[in-house]
Amino acid sequence: MHVTFEEAQKAIAAAIKKAEETGTQMCIAIVDSGSNLKAFARMNDAWVGSIDIAVKKAKTACYFGMPTGQIGQLSQPAGPLYGIEHSNDGLITFPGGLPIVNQDGILVGAIGVSGSSVENDHIVAKAGAEAIGLSDLPAHPWRT
Amino acid sequence: MHVTFEEAQKAIAAAIKKAEETGTQMCIAIVDSGSNLKAFARMNDAWVGSIDIAVKKAKTACYFGMPTGQIGQLSQPAGPLYGIEHSNDGLITFPGGLPIVNQDGILVGAIGVSGSSVENDHIVAKAGAEAIGLSDLPAHPWRT
Amino acid sequence: MHVTFEEAQKAIAAAIKKAEETGTQMCIAIVDSGSNLKAFARMNDAWVGSIDIAVKKAKTACYFGMPTGQIGQLSQPAGPLYGIEHSNDGLITFPGGLPIVNQDGILVGAIGVSGSSVENDHIVAKAGAEAIGLSDLPAHPWRT
Amino acid sequence: MHVTFEEAQKAIAAAIKKAEETGTQMCIAIVDSGSNLKAFARMNDAWVGSIDIAVKKAKTACYFGMPTGQIGQLSQPAGPLYGIEHSNDGLITFPGGLPIVNQDGILVGAIGVSGSSVENDHIVAKAGAEAIGLSDLPAHPWRT
Repeated sequence: MHVTFEEAQKAIAAAIKKAEETGTQMCIAIVDSGSNLKAFARMNDAWVGSIDIAVKKAKTACYFGMPTGQIGQLSQPAGPLYGIEHSNDGLITFPGGLPIVNQDGILVGAIGVSGSSVENDHIVAKAGAEAIGLSDLPAHPWRT
Repeated sequence: MHVTFEEAQKAIAAAIKKAEETGTQMCIAIVDSGSNLKAFARMNDAWVGSIDIAVKKAKTACYFGMPTGQIGQLSQPAGPLYGIEHSNDGLITFPGGLPIVNQDGILVGAIGVSGSSVENDHIVAKAGAEAIGLSDLPAHPWRT
Repeated sequence: MHVTFEEAQKAIAAAIKKAEETGTQMCIAIVDSGSNLKAFARMNDAWVGSIDIAVKKAKTACYFGMPTGQIGQLSQPAGPLYGIEHSNDGLITFPGGLPIVNQDGILVGAIGVSGSSVENDHIVAKAGAEAIGLSDLPAHPWRT
Repeated sequence: MHVTFEEAQKAIAAAIKKAEETGTQMCIAIVDSGSNLKAFARMNDAWVGSIDIAVKKAKTACYFGMPTGQIGQLSQPAGPLYGIEHSNDGLITFPGGLPIVNQDGILVGAIGVSGSSVENDHIVAKAGAEAIGLSDLPAHPWRT
């Protein structure tokens, strides 16, 4: 199951609204459950370097069905997943990427946000994801 | 000078309207005058393989300030630009990518469309570009 | 909708059987409808260079929902899609890749075969795809 | 000397059996002694992001003839192999990849598993490797 284009647009609109409320300029990416890009928006004055980070955050959250920051906690030096960022053409494992889960607990895609502090990136991503679904995963089985 | 996010949204909306009129399912990418992604939309049921092609068409049109199909005419075997597709992490040189030029003749970005025949891709790209500017370049100098 | 692992195994077994009947040594890849690898098999004595070709054929067939050879007819010099192989990290556009379509006309994945002549590659891919579905696409809408 | 396709199939079947016993959903890759992919399986509901990690674990274990986790101990900050993950198009150096060694002490390939905790990944990889050989290397010389 995949996020639809209409849902992706709705999520981006909600993320932009939250970004404006927080006075930030964000790049926002939505991928479907196969981690393929569905929609993308770069607000005016957002960092050019955030384009790829937003996309990679969305892909990372989808690849493993969890918030990017959760992977980052495991990928620190001496952590169990140290170096996982070298896989899949580059992961981004700090906060700002969240899975998007539908009402039946199915992963339908993910959102990635980059452009400010990781705290703000996370807040904006959460606003986007929750405009169309949940960002918390139920217990297994939940995958697409 | 760069296309604004509001202009990018307007171009994508116009492109989607034209795609719907032609009964096609498109991927549509807008880049700014630095060839960096500004906005992207994948309509429902558009080919997954068209994501990258739409983005590359937009970048290609911006890199050289001309329609992608015009480059493709020069990159055929025995042509002066044979093999140019190997540059810049991959160009797409068949129709569907157009520069976006403002009223002062300045290149402000480009649009790339993929998802149907190259004729349809071109028609949809043209509708998108012309919603916010021109797709024909004036004589030099025109660059940003 | 995605091909299941059990279906992927069944398709590979059928492809191997056909390869043995034709006296060939093949690499066989199955991807799901997001073009992500589901299963892969390299028969003994198959070319090492065919690993990547089989995977790229499967991805190519899935990306555009059509036989790889059909794309190759359009991507010849002076053809409308000349140079499309530069997209998506490299396409393979000669025969040997086929979409896998279920009984409802939904694209659920694709198969890619490499290791012999393109005629043999196609025959083996067809045997694999048809063990679990159709390789001919209905009229639109058919996409996942 | 290389692992045969029949052995690769046997190793994957044993790994899947162990994954089912542990209630996990795994990606499992087998490479030959040249680090070239021989067979691959993605169980239903396994993470899409684990495809590349499983393959990279198998390649990493084969490239250096040792368990991936052993390399990871050397690649930590201030360690002698810090940053080795940047080589060979990306290594994965946490547990889940193991060499496969035959009865004569010859490296014939490697297995990589990804999809759960690194402890589970290792257990499943070990079950796969030991279905067809040893995963402990004898003293040098042992290479193919």
